[in-house]
Amino acid sequence: MTERTAIPKGVRVYPPAEAAQRRAVEETILSVFRRWGFREVITPTFEYLEVFTAGAGEQAADQMEKFVDRQTGRLLALRSDLTPQVARLVATTLRHHPLPLRLCYAASVVRSDAAQAARQREFVQLGVELIGLDGAEADAEMVAMAVEGCQAVGLTQFQIDVGQVEFVRGLLAALAPPPDVARRLLSAVRRKDAVELDLLLGGVAGPDRLKTALAALPTLYGGPEILDRAAALAPGVPRCHEALANLRAVYDVLVQYELADRVILDLGEARALEYHNGVAFGTFVKGLGFQLSSGGRYDHLLGHFGYPCPATGFAFELDKILLALRAEGRLLEEGGPDFLIIDFNPDKRHALHLARILRGRGYAVARDIIRRDLQGSLEYCRVAGVARAIILGAPGVPGDLLMVRDIATGAERRFPMDRFCEQVGGGERPWR
Amino acid sequence: MTERTAIPKGVRVYPPAEAAQRRAVEETILSVFRRWGFREVITPTFEYLEVFTAGAGEQAADQMEKFVDRQTGRLLALRSDLTPQVARLVATTLRHHPLPLRLCYAASVVRSDAAQAARQREFVQLGVELIGLDGAEADAEMVAMAVEGCQAVGLTQFQIDVGQVEFVRGLLAALAPPPDVARRLLSAVRRKDAVELDLLLGGVAGPDRLKTALAALPTLYGGPEILDRAAALAPGVPRCHEALANLRAVYDVLVQYELADRVILDLGEARALEYHNGVAFGTFVKGLGFQLSSGGRYDHLLGHFGYPCPATGFAFELDKILLALRAEGRLLEEGGPDFLIIDFNPDKRHALHLARILRGRGYAVARDIIRRDLQGSLEYCRVAGVARAIILGAPGVPGDLLMVRDIATGAERRFPMDRFCEQVGGGERPWR
Repeated sequence: MTERTAIPKGVRVYPPAEAAQRRAVEETILSVFRRWGFREVITPTFEYLEVFTAGAGEQAADQMEKFVDRQTGRLLALRSDLTPQVARLVATTLRHHPLPLRLCYAASVVRSDAAQAARQREFVQLGVELIGLDGAEADAEMVAMAVEGCQAVGLTQFQIDVGQVEFVRGLLAALAPPPDVARRLLSAVRRKDAVELDLLLGGVAGPDRLKTALAALPTLYGGPEILDRAAALAPGVPRCHEALANLRAVYDVLVQYELADRVILDLGEARALEYHNGVAFGTFVKGLGFQLSSGGRYDHLLGHFGYPCPATGFAFELDKILLALRAEGRLLEEGGPDFLIIDFNPDKRHALHLARILRGRGYAVARDIIRRDLQGSLEYCRVAGVARAIILGAPGVPGDLLMVRDIATGAERRFPMDRFCEQVGGGERPWR
Repeated sequence: MTERTAIPKGVRVYPPAEAAQRRAVEETILSVFRRWGFREVITPTFEYLEVFTAGAGEQAADQMEKFVDRQTGRLLALRSDLTPQVARLVATTLRHHPLPLRLCYAASVVRSDAAQAARQREFVQLGVELIGLDGAEADAEMVAMAVEGCQAVGLTQFQIDVGQVEFVRGLLAALAPPPDVARRLLSAVRRKDAVELDLLLGGVAGPDRLKTALAALPTLYGGPEILDRAAALAPGVPRCHEALANLRAVYDVLVQYELADRVILDLGEARALEYHNGVAFGTFVKGLGFQLSSGGRYDHLLGHFGYPCPATGFAFELDKILLALRAEGRLLEEGGPDFLIIDFNPDKRHALHLARILRGRGYAVARDIIRRDLQGSLEYCRVAGVARAIILGAPGVPGDLLMVRDIATGAERRFPMDRFCEQVGGGERPWR
């Protein structure tokens, strides 16, 4: 039996209580996206591999689940990232739509990490893409939406780390170490590992001022004052100064948004993907070692699909939001249906009528269509999280009366059937 | 470029207008499920192959997209059917939850049909599973929910074909033709192909009365009177009579639901899946050659996962609902955001404040953060389907006034900024 019931490592099945929490958070985030004028798009679960590797580099394919298309013999990959799919959509179907385009999505992606077998392989991303704008206001809009998303789901302890990937890249390009050293340097910056950074820089030839600037990256973290410090550290590198000017412009817009206290500038924030090329940012919660969202500018990705066009975007990871809500004690427990109708009448029309009226008012109403006694039904209500039982035709109760029993308190009240239906139909809650 | 932008055959990308229609129908159907007391579950995109083949037979694997799990070397398959996944969830995580369980889902499934390359390979199913009940009321609840789902999305021209797969199987078991002939007979019944049926039966040895009954299947279609005709045709086959008694009991409950005029009894309805074993039904729309929903009883599937338990369920196919709505002319066109804020003030705080207030009231509000003149912005509104532009700091307009322009009519009205924000915040719609 084990073989048939086993679940692959890294994927999950969500029973009702968890599924309801996921759905509620997803709905809340999507409604923020919509209210900012973003419109949902839906992409396929699998694609030709090339769509995902277009801007991400060939090595990204290692993390993807691939299979052969029986119709063409080409390699297909499970969706590993929505951004390239949206970029392709914009470059093809939406090519003649005027810019900017504001698009959003909610979908699961699959990434396999052979090195970390225990890691989650399928996870849901809730994201936006703002396409056709290169200004600081566009990047600031992304950061502001990340803040509003967190607030909308009820988080309070979060901050947005905002960096600019071109600053590090400018320093590395000026220093020009061998490619493998460059990769290790970037990785050390990412991990804010000052010791490793010093060690690596010790073995590199090149101007000391560049090495000093790179070594300082883990400390270039804080308020707008770090922008001046960073400028002083990289005096002769135009690419770095452009990056700083751009980051300052974005910060200025965030001040207008009154979000300065949510934002930490972080020039060591280099977790961006291969295709990012400007402001990149992540959402962090104190005490939790992961990002709730990540994203940034990607001005060159659409060009890979034949439609050069600036763009920026970000995505929340649904599971990370739920973990953060749990850590803050803000995850609501979702219960069972609002009502279970327990009906001892042989003629079911009263029960059907009552169910129709309650459902018409939006209540979740199950009918107890199993043969058992009242005690059994009430026990079911308790375990299944039903809020209230409505009992029709109970022994000893006149036929035109119904009984509403609050499952938590055990309190029971009787109502004339007709009057009860009338009140519920009119929007009242007579059981209160 | 073609290689990078190509989309695999049989999958689709949905741009905003279509995605909005899909989301709206999905939400409507899920809300019907919830109001009937069904709670959503979420299942993984891929599973070990055995989960999907458990009750469906090995040949079902031919239609699945499979790949090798790099961690275990076992075969994984993309989700091809939610019912086995839900059955496994019930048999494991929810094993100790009291019955009945009412579960629902909205998810895409992938099925490849090598013979029909043009067919859709990924499609969304919206379904319910009612687990732990063997009575006619449970089957009737499924049919009633199928009706209510169709009504909730706005369909009017639909009917539910209700059959009982055990009637055909009883006749076939009694006749006992060679297995390949049995398969071809079943296929002919499915297609209501009376000529093929006669031809096949001509070559089979066995009692004439059984052959007559099988040949009559395509005509056993209509109101409850066909149940008597069917009983007369299969006098000595208990399995058939049990099937008819069960179908009659379900029909009687549907009469109590006042759904008799929506239901066609159809003993030739044999499109059920391998694991179905009782009442099976589909939703049809006159003039359209496909089912909007399908489902039925499957009392033996949970046993495959080690938890023998009766169950019934059905699923809508989202694309088929949309096709039916389009055929009835009831598919609403979704437009762009409610407002675009066009702001010529250097200080953006008024625009940000206004956006916040409108979004707080649930409106979709984009800000025009691109440098262009008013005509360019208004042209964008027209093409992007924006309902109204709000213009701040327009040349020649006093700074404390804003202008609301209805894009469709071109009508413009001016409002004092403060008063407008106050009214919107209070729930008014001053632009009306």
